[in-house]
Amino acid sequence: MKLSLDANTKESNFLRSALAEENGVQPFAGFRSWLEAVRTPAKVGQIPFAKLEKWRFDKKSGDLAHDSGKFFRIEGLGVETSFGPVPAWEQPIINQPEIGILGIITRRFGGVPHFLMQVKVEPGNVNLFQLSPTVQATKSNYTQVHAGSLPPYLEYFLDRSKGEVLYDQLQSEQGGRFLKKRNRNILIEVNEDLPLRSEFRWFTLRELKTLLQEDNLVNMDSRTVISCIPLIDGGMKTLASSLPAGGVTPAGHALTAFGEDLFASMIADEKRCAHKGDALISWITALKSSYELKTRYIPLKKLAGWERTESEIRHESGKHFSVIAVEVEAGIREVARWTQPLLKDAEHGLIGFLCKKINGVLHFLVGAKVEPGNFDMLELGPTVSCAQYERRKNAGALPPFAEMMLSAGPDRIRHSSLQSDEGGRFYHFQNRYLVVEIGENENPELPQNFSWMTLGQIMGFMRYNNYFNIEARGLLACLKLD
Amino acid sequence: MKLSLDANTKESNFLRSALAEENGVQPFAGFRSWLEAVRTPAKVGQIPFAKLEKWRFDKKSGDLAHDSGKFFRIEGLGVETSFGPVPAWEQPIINQPEIGILGIITRRFGGVPHFLMQVKVEPGNVNLFQLSPTVQATKSNYTQVHAGSLPPYLEYFLDRSKGEVLYDQLQSEQGGRFLKKRNRNILIEVNEDLPLRSEFRWFTLRELKTLLQEDNLVNMDSRTVISCIPLIDGGMKTLASSLPAGGVTPAGHALTAFGEDLFASMIADEKRCAHKGDALISWITALKSSYELKTRYIPLKKLAGWERTESEIRHESGKHFSVIAVEVEAGIREVARWTQPLLKDAEHGLIGFLCKKINGVLHFLVGAKVEPGNFDMLELGPTVSCAQYERRKNAGALPPFAEMMLSAGPDRIRHSSLQSDEGGRFYHFQNRYLVVEIGENENPELPQNFSWMTLGQIMGFMRYNNYFNIEARGLLACLKLD
Repeated sequence: MKLSLDANTKESNFLRSALAEENGVQPFAGFRSWLEAVRTPAKVGQIPFAKLEKWRFDKKSGDLAHDSGKFFRIEGLGVETSFGPVPAWEQPIINQPEIGILGIITRRFGGVPHFLMQVKVEPGNVNLFQLSPTVQATKSNYTQVHAGSLPPYLEYFLDRSKGEVLYDQLQSEQGGRFLKKRNRNILIEVNEDLPLRSEFRWFTLRELKTLLQEDNLVNMDSRTVISCIPLIDGGMKTLASSLPAGGVTPAGHALTAFGEDLFASMIADEKRCAHKGDALISWITALKSSYELKTRYIPLKKLAGWERTESEIRHESGKHFSVIAVEVEAGIREVARWTQPLLKDAEHGLIGFLCKKINGVLHFLVGAKVEPGNFDMLELGPTVSCAQYERRKNAGALPPFAEMMLSAGPDRIRHSSLQSDEGGRFYHFQNRYLVVEIGENENPELPQNFSWMTLGQIMGFMRYNNYFNIEARGLLACLKLD
Repeated sequence: MKLSLDANTKESNFLRSALAEENGVQPFAGFRSWLEAVRTPAKVGQIPFAKLEKWRFDKKSGDLAHDSGKFFRIEGLGVETSFGPVPAWEQPIINQPEIGILGIITRRFGGVPHFLMQVKVEPGNVNLFQLSPTVQATKSNYTQVHAGSLPPYLEYFLDRSKGEVLYDQLQSEQGGRFLKKRNRNILIEVNEDLPLRSEFRWFTLRELKTLLQEDNLVNMDSRTVISCIPLIDGGMKTLASSLPAGGVTPAGHALTAFGEDLFASMIADEKRCAHKGDALISWITALKSSYELKTRYIPLKKLAGWERTESEIRHESGKHFSVIAVEVEAGIREVARWTQPLLKDAEHGLIGFLCKKINGVLHFLVGAKVEPGNFDMLELGPTVSCAQYERRKNAGALPPFAEMMLSAGPDRIRHSSLQSDEGGRFYHFQNRYLVVEIGENENPELPQNFSWMTLGQIMGFMRYNNYFNIEARGLLACLKLD
């Protein structure tokens, strides 16, 4: 998809206000040239494991770890579960027990909340540079294992007196590839001038949602924080630039029919929801009580079915992700050079929500999913999330609802884009994001782990930790409200 | 404290309604004689470990387990944490990975919700028999490891179509003694006649709260489910018998000043709360990000500082709980005989909430606590929870606020009772429960892990899993609303 920027709006007129100009807020129309100007030459190349510096395979276990013991380790995991068609398997997994920070600073200019984003290079990204949150830091980053300088603006997240917390919760990353990894997703509202570095820029929520219609532009860490932005709480603060009022946003944008439906779904009274909140909680509780999940550590070199070559750890079937090593030369202000391992998957995954109106209110089909690295056995996910979907399609092994989603006509597709998993851990992992609306009278039979929810119910759960997985959160971030 | 039963109320008049009589609802005044009639002779005696049947110490590890591999195991745990004064220790812990069911059936008679409770014998109780939820069953129980009959009324909790779910959430047990143990706390409202067994009886919430003023009468599993009863949601259904309306409950009971304060604390608008909900969530997130907790399995026989004698596993200091074995002959309908291990502590613990008015609204001082068996590092607890408080007092080692609580004058004590931990696992564990109100102008300095919350905020968190620990929930259950 192409980026479409309509600059002739009240919103962009406002951006030329004195306060905004003083603080470096720039018209959205200039985004593309700014991005090109900020990007610096960068180079990422796959290398043999032997060329990794400061990373090594443990002699006894074969686990791949950094000499400092920090950052992350790649180790083996044995899995047994009563969920899904495969009862047991072994796989590599990333063990990164630290809680990192994914934080966005927001500030209102002329009453409209703006979000401070940066251009950041990550070696696994197909396009290297994507938009990233204000701060994206592992504990190793900000406790100086790199021996580098502290990430800019970090102090706003460590010292909570510097702003008002709008959101601050622990949320998971991919339970299929990380072992109980969680990050603090934080949104801080400040009301003071910030020095604006050249690789940072203010965006309204509407502008971010516009960029999220493009492929691979807003990174995974940004998407999870954006998905957590409270849209209704706090006096609708954050929605001043995107909520409808009689068919147009306060900034004067006409609402699409889908934007109106989303808004209605966010504020719907429980009586119009397919299920009451207590019933949804009970459904989750019953699922957690009914499935079994047992995992155990396995030394990486002893994983059944996986082999290590000079430059890859891969499954003998040729399916699934692999582990590789890369050498990176990149940077924004000063070019740095480092090597690191990454997980690699060149085939595309599929992440999609089915939605439909029930009682006149738009509902999303939520699928609970047991994944081995989940913090609490299962989390709620989108209708479909699977890796290597074209290969699975050809093998006739797509998960429920995937076929329905992939064969939907263009009049039913409410969102479609290609989005990257985190480029700091994942090499060329991309997912086809889809939101497909089906008719009010279509009532597909639901397996026990599926349930319809409104957007308001989904966001209610997202105030608490470990209810919605990152696949769901990333896709929800892309929903345009106008 | 003595049980005080005022039978001359509208509520008890109602109890003589035709529907109630048909369903076996009996006047509260007859409770004591019913309890005596239902109790049967029972005998519990400590035995040497060698006399345990079907339980044995694993030869290699020394872990104590049942031959079936079910029920629970007692094993060792090594703990390292940055929380609290002790940075590292080793201890026995109960590993019971199954999710059990603690369920209460509720039914309205004449509009007043009644709760179905049973008299149950548990070998660790000082008085053997206490009131227990309708169903209190481990997965081993209801999947027939006992080879006995299914617990009565279990079908109402397994088949969710049999009633409306009012509450159904996973909640923790003691994080100091259980390894990530959780139970499903369930409240089901039914609207059909139930066969009433002799050891079962209907109580209103007000009656249960009256019984909770007595020592060791309502067991721990009942207390946790009672604490989760939604008091406001669902159209105040459950409060029909206990909520105030102009100074008296609908049943005509005069409100105490404290009951009015509790009610106001439950419905207080966020503006009158000391902290907004988002700020409280952020406080919890920051604490989880700041503390470290590392635990590792240790074979029971290798625990440093613990010794096993013929009949006890105890700490060489003489402090802390011990592990013992008992032989039991007891039952309600038919007497059964079995042996099992139990944790033992003859000294009393202290569990207490400080409360005070802020902005005219009653707030409770919540203390976040890291405990080694916690599912997610820390949970919110009461102001004080500690074992063996008299010993600690004599040693000058009481935790924060305990001294203030223990020295409070009678005019400040809003609740005081002695309550048992679960008698199926714990032998003679009792806790002094205290709720102490301090003056509006008293502003004790708070360590970072303490925060004031209203009752409404506390119950808001209790809709979700693993926010409030069992020590807090058990004490909250005892608060009389009228």
